[in-house]
Amino acid sequence: MTEIEWTIYLSGEIHTDWREQIISACEAKDLPVNFIGPVTVHEDSDDCGAVILGEEDNPFWRDQKGARMNAIRTRTLMESADLVVVRFGEKYKQWNAAFDAGYAAALNTPYITLHDPALTHALKEVDGAALATAQDPLQVAKIIEYVTTGRLQRR
Amino acid sequence: MTEIEWTIYLSGEIHTDWREQIISACEAKDLPVNFIGPVTVHEDSDDCGAVILGEEDNPFWRDQKGARMNAIRTRTLMESADLVVVRFGEKYKQWNAAFDAGYAAALNTPYITLHDPALTHALKEVDGAALATAQDPLQVAKIIEYVTTGRLQRR
Amino acid sequence: MTEIEWTIYLSGEIHTDWREQIISACEAKDLPVNFIGPVTVHEDSDDCGAVILGEEDNPFWRDQKGARMNAIRTRTLMESADLVVVRFGEKYKQWNAAFDAGYAAALNTPYITLHDPALTHALKEVDGAALATAQDPLQVAKIIEYVTTGRLQRR
Amino acid sequence: MTEIEWTIYLSGEIHTDWREQIISACEAKDLPVNFIGPVTVHEDSDDCGAVILGEEDNPFWRDQKGARMNAIRTRTLMESADLVVVRFGEKYKQWNAAFDAGYAAALNTPYITLHDPALTHALKEVDGAALATAQDPLQVAKIIEYVTTGRLQRR
Amino acid sequence: MTEIEWTIYLSGEIHTDWREQIISACEAKDLPVNFIGPVTVHEDSDDCGAVILGEEDNPFWRDQKGARMNAIRTRTLMESADLVVVRFGEKYKQWNAAFDAGYAAALNTPYITLHDPALTHALKEVDGAALATAQDPLQVAKIIEYVTTGRLQRR
Amino acid sequence: MTEIEWTIYLSGEIHTDWREQIISACEAKDLPVNFIGPVTVHEDSDDCGAVILGEEDNPFWRDQKGARMNAIRTRTLMESADLVVVRFGEKYKQWNAAFDAGYAAALNTPYITLHDPALTHALKEVDGAALATAQDPLQVAKIIEYVTTGRLQRR
Amino acid sequence: MTEIEWTIYLSGEIHTDWREQIISACEAKDLPVNFIGPVTVHEDSDDCGAVILGEEDNPFWRDQKGARMNAIRTRTLMESADLVVVRFGEKYKQWNAAFDAGYAAALNTPYITLHDPALTHALKEVDGAALATAQDPLQVAKIIEYVTTGRLQRR
Amino acid sequence: MTEIEWTIYLSGEIHTDWREQIISACEAKDLPVNFIGPVTVHEDSDDCGAVILGEEDNPFWRDQKGARMNAIRTRTLMESADLVVVRFGEKYKQWNAAFDAGYAAALNTPYITLHDPALTHALKEVDGAALATAQDPLQVAKIIEYVTTGRLQRR
Repeated sequence: MTEIEWTIYLSGEIHTDWREQIISACEAKDLPVNFIGPVTVHEDSDDCGAVILGEEDNPFWRDQKGARMNAIRTRTLMESADLVVVRFGEKYKQWNAAFDAGYAAALNTPYITLHDPALTHALKEVDGAALATAQDPLQVAKIIEYVTTGRLQRR
Repeated sequence: MTEIEWTIYLSGEIHTDWREQIISACEAKDLPVNFIGPVTVHEDSDDCGAVILGEEDNPFWRDQKGARMNAIRTRTLMESADLVVVRFGEKYKQWNAAFDAGYAAALNTPYITLHDPALTHALKEVDGAALATAQDPLQVAKIIEYVTTGRLQRR
Repeated sequence: MTEIEWTIYLSGEIHTDWREQIISACEAKDLPVNFIGPVTVHEDSDDCGAVILGEEDNPFWRDQKGARMNAIRTRTLMESADLVVVRFGEKYKQWNAAFDAGYAAALNTPYITLHDPALTHALKEVDGAALATAQDPLQVAKIIEYVTTGRLQRR
Repeated sequence: MTEIEWTIYLSGEIHTDWREQIISACEAKDLPVNFIGPVTVHEDSDDCGAVILGEEDNPFWRDQKGARMNAIRTRTLMESADLVVVRFGEKYKQWNAAFDAGYAAALNTPYITLHDPALTHALKEVDGAALATAQDPLQVAKIIEYVTTGRLQRR
Repeated sequence: MTEIEWTIYLSGEIHTDWREQIISACEAKDLPVNFIGPVTVHEDSDDCGAVILGEEDNPFWRDQKGARMNAIRTRTLMESADLVVVRFGEKYKQWNAAFDAGYAAALNTPYITLHDPALTHALKEVDGAALATAQDPLQVAKIIEYVTTGRLQRR
Repeated sequence: MTEIEWTIYLSGEIHTDWREQIISACEAKDLPVNFIGPVTVHEDSDDCGAVILGEEDNPFWRDQKGARMNAIRTRTLMESADLVVVRFGEKYKQWNAAFDAGYAAALNTPYITLHDPALTHALKEVDGAALATAQDPLQVAKIIEYVTTGRLQRR
Repeated sequence: MTEIEWTIYLSGEIHTDWREQIISACEAKDLPVNFIGPVTVHEDSDDCGAVILGEEDNPFWRDQKGARMNAIRTRTLMESADLVVVRFGEKYKQWNAAFDAGYAAALNTPYITLHDPALTHALKEVDGAALATAQDPLQVAKIIEYVTTGRLQRR
Repeated sequence: MTEIEWTIYLSGEIHTDWREQIISACEAKDLPVNFIGPVTVHEDSDDCGAVILGEEDNPFWRDQKGARMNAIRTRTLMESADLVVVRFGEKYKQWNAAFDAGYAAALNTPYITLHDPALTHALKEVDGAALATAQDPLQVAKIIEYVTTGRLQRR
């Protein structure tokens, strides 16, 4: 059997190192995966529109400029992903993470949610359309290992 | 010109009467619209899975049962909608509202967001893919009037 | 809110009266639904190709003639369905029921499975892509009531 | 003329060596093909959800966890396949094989069935949507040779 | 069960009365069907472009004008059809009939071919993607009866 | 044969009465058509965003507000159209008309262009993807008559 | 600007060397193209089903076996093509060529027809949906040169 | 994170060097991008149809021949693009640029507009569906840098 290269989009929280944990665990396992995702420098992601195309007085339009510029990246990469991991953290509203989950669901692209059990009830619709719900990045890495290579690490 | 009948899905917050305000304003204007939406009785939407298919000890699976049963309704109705209105209220995480916005965006179905300006920055990605952002249900009713009939109420 | 008319495809077992039970329960509840499904007269469904287009000596081709003629009906109706119910009974292999579930899954059309718990393990992939799994036709009727009208019958 | 690389998904029975027979026959012919498929270690495919995400008391949810994790792999690979081969063996219900056939049919992806003639009548709907029905893995290898290279082995 | 209204496109030969035979047989059976099709007045279908938009000296462009005007009708109606019947007669090349069959195949819309057995070998690719092949309009009417109502006329 | 009801979107120029000419000619012929289109009151179409959602200082954002509100109507109606007529007049840039033509082309929806021959070279890409090019609204009405009813008015 | 690699499907007549003429002309021009197409050995394409899967007495089913096996190749390759060239020769009905043109049209894949002007009227619907109609393989090679590299050979 | 290779289509004006400015700025930044676009030699793009397939007396058909031949290139490349940049210059009607924007919008492919602020009002529908509007090619290069690599050049 041939091992296919998977493209995995890491969506959501940008204030903890969950992406790095997944990526380094997968590298240690030498998995056939490419990781992609949004720009994760918070201030760049906020300011990009105003910095490149000019400042705005009105915060609504400033945010539109930035959000739509980020959408060029996120939509294109989301549409090229074989699998999406959506992380919800402790802080912030993180509506963009839920937005990405809905986007993946409508495209029929499989996604995994990653969050603390305390968020279970609030995230029930988002988890309901997920193919797996994990609590810890290393579980996600094991899922990725299993689905891409068929290797199940039993302990 | 023929007036087409529009089907409009009202997504999001279920604890205030914003749906009724939009619907009664549109009825007063006699607009060619049908309104559809999720089940808005909070406890029914939480309990439906367990009530119909049997209780669950584990809250995660109880929520899965409910959320997936609700998804039968919400996905089917969302896919039949010509326009989606997504309301974000003061309380709760409302990740399902953002999920619905992402779903609509991926289907290329137009949507309008409705929320307090205080939420502007947190909702920037969701607003960025919307075709309009309103602060008050009566603005939404005026938008619906305009897009379905071409009548612009200038005051 | 407007009540939308739903079209529901009843797939699978043709040797018990589960379809009638669902239909009459839904009629008693006066639900906004149309039920559609395959031809359920076993011998007609076997013989249709040979009867209309001529007998075949080779049983493989006789079955092809019949199966493909039935597919004219089943695919067209499946594609027009808002919801599919897939029933697995005690007898026969019922591969066509699993085929229909896979067809619905690929179309992203919600489906409900209906079967005895004894079949749970054998049907795990089919249940895994379902939005609900019921054991009894009356549960299915309650789900249909809930998703089409929002009424939850709590007892 | 250029020879295109084909990706072929081998679905179904996991208890005999039919996959190896097809793969080694195609390798002997040096065909431009990549073979992909589900995880074929039965116990891993059953246990993956519980092993990675935690055990479940309820067998239904244990199966859901596993089946949905496997679906991350199977759906993604199925959607990338140019051709699907679906094998039905002597034992087990093999509803997942029929599910995959229905999934391929809805995607309009060509598939070949492989089974004993004794199963012909029971599989008539599944065969009816197939582009070929073989009884033996070497026939499948010859079909793959012919459709990928145009070489017809006449004896 | 509800009887759905079917829309059936009658493609191909315009020099015999096969359409009328099918339509009157279906009317006699009172079937839930609407029949649609191309313009069947040969000279109008040839001349429409030149008559409405002006004559052309060059026969190639005269034909383009007509063919593209006819395509407004045929594509729109083909895309709205649940089932297509494609008739090949004795005379003319009838490439447009084969074109319509290919169009239906790519849309995954079921079609039936109707032709004399003498044409079997020449039409093998077109028949190969059909769900039934009939030799006589009354067989087609019986197939339509069966797939739309489930009634099988055994004699 | 059944006469299908057609939905026809009239896109482009809003400063002459070409829409009325087509509509009244089709009414006189009693054709089975519904006409839909953008809001044609120029100032309302410019001001709608600012009037309903609040004025903007920056003309770019004022235009965005209006254009995106109009897009709710135009995209929804365009996607429901069976046929689009795109009119280019003498004045203004009319980039929105060309935008609509591109939108229809990508949806594979047939469209007719309507313009003076003086614009032929400038519109060659837009005409190249059209199924007919007319110079006068009455020609368009005749095309609509022919494609919807099959009646060819030869003089 | 980057030169993209194009995949071009050569459909239709298999009794003259038109494919070789196009391929060698394009090789001489060193164009960034891959050519793909059906199996062009007439007897293999007729016999493949019977040779690999067993002989059939009934010529209809023998042709079905062959035609459907060929369809595994032709559909998969057609769907991967950026451009299709459809050749109609002097002999035979060539309904499969017209079928392929219809298939490409429904996929919105551009195609070029290649035939003698004597066939213009009979092929008007097929030419009407083509983006170019050539009479000679060298014209096709020049079109391919122009569309893939932008080089126009003016003499 | 992996850097994905982006394919960017540069549509519109062909009389200034805006393409070269974007391309050389991106090369200087060493970005992971491929640029594609229409044939930009004006006379070749006008004459290609007539030169390769034969002259036409009627300018309308001459333009059709050319425009449709160019469409082989432009549609294929547009459909392969991850991002489209649409440039409107000072001169000419440039309806093809607006056509391309509509085409991209219907495909849900992100696009950026590039034009002088003087054109803002006339282009409001086209800008309304864009994800960014720039005035200068170097801004476009910065957007491309940001969305492909995440690097924001703050000055």
